[in-house]
Amino acid sequence: MAPRRGCFLTFEGTEGVGKSTQLAFAADWLKARDVDFVVTREPGGTPMAEAIRELLLAPRQEPVDDLTELLLIFSARAQHLSQLIRPHLDAGRWVLCDRFTDATYAYQGGGRGVSMEQIGILETLVQQALRPDHVILLDAPVETGMARARQRGDLDRFEREAVAFFERVRAIYHERASQWPDRYHVLDAAQSEIAVSDQLAATLSGILEAFRP
Amino acid sequence: MAPRRGCFLTFEGTEGVGKSTQLAFAADWLKARDVDFVVTREPGGTPMAEAIRELLLAPRQEPVDDLTELLLIFSARAQHLSQLIRPHLDAGRWVLCDRFTDATYAYQGGGRGVSMEQIGILETLVQQALRPDHVILLDAPVETGMARARQRGDLDRFEREAVAFFERVRAIYHERASQWPDRYHVLDAAQSEIAVSDQLAATLSGILEAFRP
Repeated sequence: MAPRRGCFLTFEGTEGVGKSTQLAFAADWLKARDVDFVVTREPGGTPMAEAIRELLLAPRQEPVDDLTELLLIFSARAQHLSQLIRPHLDAGRWVLCDRFTDATYAYQGGGRGVSMEQIGILETLVQQALRPDHVILLDAPVETGMARARQRGDLDRFEREAVAFFERVRAIYHERASQWPDRYHVLDAAQSEIAVSDQLAATLSGILEAFRP
Repeated sequence: MAPRRGCFLTFEGTEGVGKSTQLAFAADWLKARDVDFVVTREPGGTPMAEAIRELLLAPRQEPVDDLTELLLIFSARAQHLSQLIRPHLDAGRWVLCDRFTDATYAYQGGGRGVSMEQIGILETLVQQALRPDHVILLDAPVETGMARARQRGDLDRFEREAVAFFERVRAIYHERASQWPDRYHVLDAAQSEIAVSDQLAATLSGILEAFRP
């Protein structure tokens, strides 16, 4: 008998909300409950997809067209899905992914103003019907995440631009969470690390209970 | 007054048909007639697009998903269009391009069996209404182009597979040329180099005459 398909769980949020820390907490929590899972990230997750990530992040003189960037993100995603995410899910394993297509809607769409329609076309092309089963959204006021940057010194103009950018990113995350309240779990990431982990543990309990027959 | 938009001219054909030689001939021919033009190629044409080309061509252990490859090709194309092709056309310059989206239909679609519908979705996303004004298709029986490979030695099984592949590529080129006979110019590339250049010169004369008011 084919194993039951694994749960596809993604972690989203703006900078400085403690996403990596809480993803590590979730991994420990699931391990303690004998859940078979893998942890991965986007863009990246396979050597080829990581090479595309490097291409995206490399500083260059040439301006990179928004659509070029969007197609590169989805090419890395197609590779990640075909070589890692789908095979593991099909084998019954859970996949915990640091960012996925929600980040594309939030950062490219909300932050940079790339057409949401274009993102939707590529999402359908690359994922067909596949969507994360659950999205953990670590949410905090942008000012909270930016606090560290402010301490670093005289970054006023950059900072003001950055705040406006992350406000747009956060607004799209909120919009998507309201649209699919059963799949999105919004955690208050302005609280202490332990308090956030408590919220996360409660969320994971609910997901695991619903998932196990 | 804005200059008249330049002519977008692409060169297509299977391996060994003399595409580079004839593209160089076309460049000399246009130069002698004071046409302002640039020569470029796909995938590539800008530093970023060339970096994507390297990523496509690099040998790797990991199998590359067809859709990953297709998205990479179109990401390079989006960059090439935004940074080089469109600006030159808009400035009134002709653009001579070694391969373009016809090659994607022929090689990825015909040769590799990638969904023509997916190619069409990406073509519209990346190019909107832009298509080459004229396509020079250098056409020769696959056996002619393969002759050199045969001389290299014992490649029988590879060669049979390669012949079948290039037959499918050529069939798609033919299909597209029949569909848009005004835009596609099929030259008999089985003839001598000089005879092909004569055909090309006659074709270019017709294009230039129609193009100049």
